Amino acid sequence: MSFQKPSVPKGTRDFGPEEMQRRNYIFDTIRSVFRLYGYLPIETPAMENLTTLLGKYGEEGDKLLFRILNSGDFLKDVPAEYMHEPEFQRLWPYISEKGLRYDLTVPFARFVVQNRDKLTFPFKRYQIQPVWRADRPQRGRYREFYQCDADVIGSHSLLNEAELLKMADEVFSRLGLNISILLNNRKILAGIAEYIGEPEKLTDITTAIDKMDKIGPENVIAELTGRGLNTGAIDLLKPVLFLKGDNTEKLDSLKNILHHSETGLKGIEELEAVMGYTNALGLNSVISLDLTLARGLNYYTGAIIEIKSKDVSIGSICGGGRYDNLTGIFGMPGVSGVGISFGADRIYDVLEQSGRFPDVAAAGTKVLIVNFGEEGVRYCLPLLNSLREAGLGVELYPDAAKMKKQLSYADALRIPYVVLAGEDEMNCGMFTLKNMRSGEQQKIGAEDIINVIGVGKH
Amino acid sequence: MSFQKPSVPKGTRDFGPEEMQRRNYIFDTIRSVFRLYGYLPIETPAMENLTTLLGKYGEEGDKLLFRILNSGDFLKDVPAEYMHEPEFQRLWPYISEKGLRYDLTVPFARFVVQNRDKLTFPFKRYQIQPVWRADRPQRGRYREFYQCDADVIGSHSLLNEAELLKMADEVFSRLGLNISILLNNRKILAGIAEYIGEPEKLTDITTAIDKMDKIGPENVIAELTGRGLNTGAIDLLKPVLFLKGDNTEKLDSLKNILHHSETGLKGIEELEAVMGYTNALGLNSVISLDLTLARGLNYYTGAIIEIKSKDVSIGSICGGGRYDNLTGIFGMPGVSGVGISFGADRIYDVLEQSGRFPDVAAAGTKVLIVNFGEEGVRYCLPLLNSLREAGLGVELYPDAAKMKKQLSYADALRIPYVVLAGEDEMNCGMFTLKNMRSGEQQKIGAEDIINVIGVGKH
Repeated sequence: MSFQKPSVPKGTRDFGPEEMQRRNYIFDTIRSVFRLYGYLPIETPAMENLTTLLGKYGEEGDKLLFRILNSGDFLKDVPAEYMHEPEFQRLWPYISEKGLRYDLTVPFARFVVQNRDKLTFPFKRYQIQPVWRADRPQRGRYREFYQCDADVIGSHSLLNEAELLKMADEVFSRLGLNISILLNNRKILAGIAEYIGEPEKLTDITTAIDKMDKIGPENVIAELTGRGLNTGAIDLLKPVLFLKGDNTEKLDSLKNILHHSETGLKGIEELEAVMGYTNALGLNSVISLDLTLARGLNYYTGAIIEIKSKDVSIGSICGGGRYDNLTGIFGMPGVSGVGISFGADRIYDVLEQSGRFPDVAAAGTKVLIVNFGEEGVRYCLPLLNSLREAGLGVELYPDAAKMKKQLSYADALRIPYVVLAGEDEMNCGMFTLKNMRSGEQQKIGAEDIINVIGVGKH
Repeated sequence: MSFQKPSVPKGTRDFGPEEMQRRNYIFDTIRSVFRLYGYLPIETPAMENLTTLLGKYGEEGDKLLFRILNSGDFLKDVPAEYMHEPEFQRLWPYISEKGLRYDLTVPFARFVVQNRDKLTFPFKRYQIQPVWRADRPQRGRYREFYQCDADVIGSHSLLNEAELLKMADEVFSRLGLNISILLNNRKILAGIAEYIGEPEKLTDITTAIDKMDKIGPENVIAELTGRGLNTGAIDLLKPVLFLKGDNTEKLDSLKNILHHSETGLKGIEELEAVMGYTNALGLNSVISLDLTLARGLNYYTGAIIEIKSKDVSIGSICGGGRYDNLTGIFGMPGVSGVGISFGADRIYDVLEQSGRFPDVAAAGTKVLIVNFGEEGVRYCLPLLNSLREAGLGVELYPDAAKMKKQLSYADALRIPYVVLAGEDEMNCGMFTLKNMRSGEQQKIGAEDIINVIGVGKH
């Protein structure tokens, strides 16, 4: 019999105890801040109907969906004529009707529409779940990764934008990370497109300038030309994109430039209102107006938010914005929302590379009781019980293995205390408690162990 | 434009805030007990290679796997001759190489083999993740559901069985549920098969008697006959399966019956040892020896465990056992393990039907600050900040909506306190704090609000 060499699908990962402890540190931090700000948890199924997913992420996104093959005889609904010279795209609709979640935003929109009668608006939800994309795996890009989203839906107030920014600031402060917050507004971008005489080319413009970071200004200009912008428009655009000065100076220049564009001025007004609120709330990090910030997804209609690490160059670790019509596609138009999404996997990489993970053992176990055989086990079981009843993580080594093996188990799991009960101890009704860090040991009664160790201290 | 009526795939569910709060109560309870007993968390990918999954769950299980269609042109690897008269089973291996996790046990075995060099044995892991099965959906049976597994691998000690039973007892005690714990041992079943002269029919016998609960003794007998057991064997089997008396009496009878079967006696010895340990550990629930307990899966080699609710008739809510060769199929033979799995979705149903969910609001929010417009917002932002800094969940209603609307938001989310700051309050630098349950309200300074409400009290 030949054995399979076990492996996981490419782009996916196992998480062992140490990684889980670190991942949970991130998730717990984000979750506790979400809760503090009044966001409510929801979860949606891993599988969605393809009718829900297709067409929401552009042509490229559709290709990156993981499709689930229909159960049983998946060929039974394929029209006979399609099987003569089969083309995979033509077969798709007949052999697969479900796909894996690609992000949390579209399932959330679907959720809101489907559950509208049960929800209280404004509805503030958070959702922390994995998503799947059939992207080419590479360093830092996985086919299964977690998103941590918070959105408010059913409120136009710009207080929401400010609260989300404050919340992100709080999350990264708690994680001990230095960040830059970049802010823009889609309406300002629309105003700029008007100003350069190319209002109908807004999508082309945003798609191109969104790549500024990756490909640099020259290539962006080349792409804009490729997308049909004439030299005059580009000449008008350049100085706007590279406005100098602090936020106030930039906004003052913009007000001049966009004074004919109602939309543009509205965008400036929104941005100023958001900044006014965040100033009042007092953030630890600085917010910078970045006119090249567009973000790929086309559904943003107001604020556009992006957060980067100042310690590790890894791209965006959090992003979001305002969208006015996400639920429209599911038959519920005119509901405005705003949200942000934390990329837990990238935050993990930043914490790791900057050495900022707190040093905590994966195990919750504080005491290992050494196993000296049947008689010793019987002697120790009541102690095992009473320590656990006191809330202390305790293990009794299951086998009467060599002392060295048992102690190296405690070492490997960074268990801080070991209890030993040999003949001596049993004769006098005591235990030996050994501190694994200091090496100190003391003979002690069962009832005193908890006092020496303390609960929750380690 | 016609709108899609939004829906989720059949057999899957959305979880709103109230359900999430209840589900998390279950997960948190299980997780905290797992940790108290020294189990370490791991997670594995939702997708596994089909080579990992296929053949591990029987022919029926293979059919219930959700298969992921290969990305892009999934037809490109299909041999041309297979497309002439395509049969779905013949196409499977060429168009799909990944499937969704069907349980947590096989991925865990794969994980252990793949990560053997990084792990410390005995390895005690827990894993709480969803699994997917293309079962026909029905009441209480879903296509996506959570398993909560704890296993010890790399130790033969029967202390592990006892600890798992104690741990399950602790979980259900904390959840406030009354349970029956059923215990059996595969070696006793093997001994019985020897005793009735049909040792090679062990699988047939266990498969049939495993259905005792569902189809009753007469149908089990009929099935045994159908599976080729002769009348003589069945006549010997019947009194053994329906032994009377308490555990001790049953075991005494069994010792007589199985005195020629080495395996059978070994099973009795194991069972007595486990019961000895659980007696010493002191469980809240009673453990009953149940010789009809076999459980479907064929990989158990020692203890077989099943737990049922005494309050709601819903089948097994937790189960497990000892397996001696689960990792063998991945090239790592001779590693013994034992584990249990909690069915979170059924536990949810039991808690709901027996009215035992604690009454906790889904929202973590303790205070809603009413929004009286721009000036009031500015006045309240410092309070919002300081209450959150004190760890209190607070929301400022984002829109200056009608008072009634804002208060009914607080009602719907069961937020216990509301803060109001109109002109009066602003003039004297105070706030009005209203207790939403009692209706009482008082004028109060910002610094006193936290004292009145307390942190974590509600």
